[in-house]
Amino acid sequence: LHARTRLSAESIFSRMSRLAAQRGAVNLGQGFPSTPPPAFLLEAARRAVGTVDQYSPPIGLPALREAVAQDLEVQPEQVVITCGATEAMFALAQTLYGPNPGGQPDELIAFEPVFDIYLPQTVMVGATFVGVPLNLSAEGWRLDIDALCRAVTPRTKALIVNSPFNPTGSVFTRAELQAIADLAREHDFWLISDEVYDELYYDVRPVSLRTLAPERTFTVGSAGKRLDATGWRVGWIVTPEGAAPEVAGLHQWTTFCAPAPLQAAVAEALGIARTSGFYDGLRRSYLKRMQLLAAGLRDLGAEVFTPQGTYFLTARLPGVDAERLVTEGGVAVIPLEAFYRTQPAPPEMLRLAFCKSEAEIEEALRRLKGFL
Amino acid sequence: LHARTRLSAESIFSRMSRLAAQRGAVNLGQGFPSTPPPAFLLEAARRAVGTVDQYSPPIGLPALREAVAQDLEVQPEQVVITCGATEAMFALAQTLYGPNPGGQPDELIAFEPVFDIYLPQTVMVGATFVGVPLNLSAEGWRLDIDALCRAVTPRTKALIVNSPFNPTGSVFTRAELQAIADLAREHDFWLISDEVYDELYYDVRPVSLRTLAPERTFTVGSAGKRLDATGWRVGWIVTPEGAAPEVAGLHQWTTFCAPAPLQAAVAEALGIARTSGFYDGLRRSYLKRMQLLAAGLRDLGAEVFTPQGTYFLTARLPGVDAERLVTEGGVAVIPLEAFYRTQPAPPEMLRLAFCKSEAEIEEALRRLKGFL
Ligand SMILES: CSCCC(=O)C(=O)O
Ligand SMILES: CSCCC(=O)C(=O)O
Repeated sequence: LHARTRLSAESIFSRMSRLAAQRGAVNLGQGFPSTPPPAFLLEAARRAVGTVDQYSPPIGLPALREAVAQDLEVQPEQVVITCGATEAMFALAQTLYGPNPGGQPDELIAFEPVFDIYLPQTVMVGATFVGVPLNLSAEGWRLDIDALCRAVTPRTKALIVNSPFNPTGSVFTRAELQAIADLAREHDFWLISDEVYDELYYDVRPVSLRTLAPERTFTVGSAGKRLDATGWRVGWIVTPEGAAPEVAGLHQWTTFCAPAPLQAAVAEALGIARTSGFYDGLRRSYLKRMQLLAAGLRDLGAEVFTPQGTYFLTARLPGVDAERLVTEGGVAVIPLEAFYRTQPAPPEMLRLAFCKSEAEIEEALRRLKGFL
Repeated sequence: LHARTRLSAESIFSRMSRLAAQRGAVNLGQGFPSTPPPAFLLEAARRAVGTVDQYSPPIGLPALREAVAQDLEVQPEQVVITCGATEAMFALAQTLYGPNPGGQPDELIAFEPVFDIYLPQTVMVGATFVGVPLNLSAEGWRLDIDALCRAVTPRTKALIVNSPFNPTGSVFTRAELQAIADLAREHDFWLISDEVYDELYYDVRPVSLRTLAPERTFTVGSAGKRLDATGWRVGWIVTPEGAAPEVAGLHQWTTFCAPAPLQAAVAEALGIARTSGFYDGLRRSYLKRMQLLAAGLRDLGAEVFTPQGTYFLTARLPGVDAERLVTEGGVAVIPLEAFYRTQPAPPEMLRLAFCKSEAEIEEALRRLKGFL
């Protein structure tokens, strides 16, 4: 087998979900909701199967490109539909960086703690991963612009920005994003803005990096995260003008196209979600569960870093080993060190998902208390 | 953008389908059926949405791995589920070949005319594509084992075998496959057996290469091709024992997992298709349409090479330019030269798809006659 199979280890998310299932643990690990997707999405899918069953154009079904464009206030020509946001990120890695003939590999920068797919995707396409740590203080997680500046080299080809940020739940401010956009212009690198949690925020609405640097920003989105259907594998990329055919042209060799009937269903559902107040309801419901989890963790003595977005929070909980917790305590969480690849991790930190039912969160808190 | 975007050109299939749609042409180009998938598949999908909506394990839903294993008489542990056969082929390219540190890139061999994804996938993972021509004589298309032997070098890492073969419709004999298996053993390279048309044959049942070299064969299959649902993006890989986690471990970084509700539906449908005689009916129906198309083409003076499998046939039709035919004649077909990348193409050859309704085939023949 090729040497790149050294990247084949099971991800921490799959591993924790597998252990949770084997042990009957409450799964606050992997980020998928335990509530079903909204009825309007399911109904649209039931109508789509039997009518939209064959290949779509690799760039995506016209109706879905149109719906995404309306939502994000861009042109449909800028939109590429992918098999989930994971494939969107991979298609951008293929499009933007890799080995460079006669030179050193391109460099890709991302912030640490880092969502686990960014590093292996970078290595798979033959580029070098550069991690820049976020700062953790009593006020929470913040960008370290100076550290970012120091990480930029002539080989920097792109920076991945993820806001709302998985795993910490941070939302970057307009000023922070403006500093990033300025830096990218100065050093002429691309920006990949992973905005899969764009509708999941608990404070001000996140600024989209694209609005600050439209000429160099690729925005990634996810129907799975917006519509509580993480297994549907429908994601999208908004490209700078003119770049969509290049991205779609590489994506066609990876998966050809995204699942056609599910694309058709999402096209219909995005319009309904936008106009029906669905996302407001989603935010209210997640906020309530976040508060339930945060309060419960604080009662147990944890230091909780309140997220501004996503459905994750980070907490310092001394004495809790995630491996022991899932096997002996019956609760799956993700140890934050799993998100550190080039930097030391802050100690005793966990990521907990609150996209689970209130009953599950309460049960997890009870078990945690017993475990402690 | 990275230099690999030189591979971004729109595929001939997408291009012809797009032109066909724009011109109102009958589409005998891209290989997708114009009849809907079977009702038992659609019903299973309508039940699956709302129940199986979140991430599956990257390696696939247990029920689908089980169903594929039963069909192909292997162990479920050998099965990896992918976003269609295109991603299955890409995952194998990632797993098996690429650059080799300090050495020359690995070499991948495939037969020409070559299904268009094999070459760009090979280049994308950093390996070298080596084409070996099939022989075309009055008896039809045949393997040239001597040419294959000559193409093997110490850098040969894998050979892609595609039987039934797209674009020619050839099915390799047991003796041919045995010769391939012997060669692979002698020179110790992997075999990738693209068997997406395994249930579409019009003569003897194709031999599966895996049965002749199970220790080195990766078999690729497709729910889209078996169940007339090419847009569903559910494919699979059967690996040699022990290799499935390695393949799944790379696939997890490309797409994470295949569409979960469609996986669940296919799991159910494969069992029904196997026991209900569905594939017999499919073959009968495609055979009838093949004969209709072949007879019509012969009436127009074409030399038709009768396929033993797939839903494509090749024909020599002097004086027909595919570009002019779609724009002026109202019929989309694929010029065979689109499948030649390292060899000269035999002249005046076309590939025509007969996975379309009889009415469409008849209309295409009428238009072709007018065009000639
Ligand atoms: C693609 S698996 C990871 C799911 C997720 O977003 C998370 O748990 O962080
Ligand atoms: C993945 S697009 C090509 C479809 C097909 O199998 C063909 O037309 O050859």
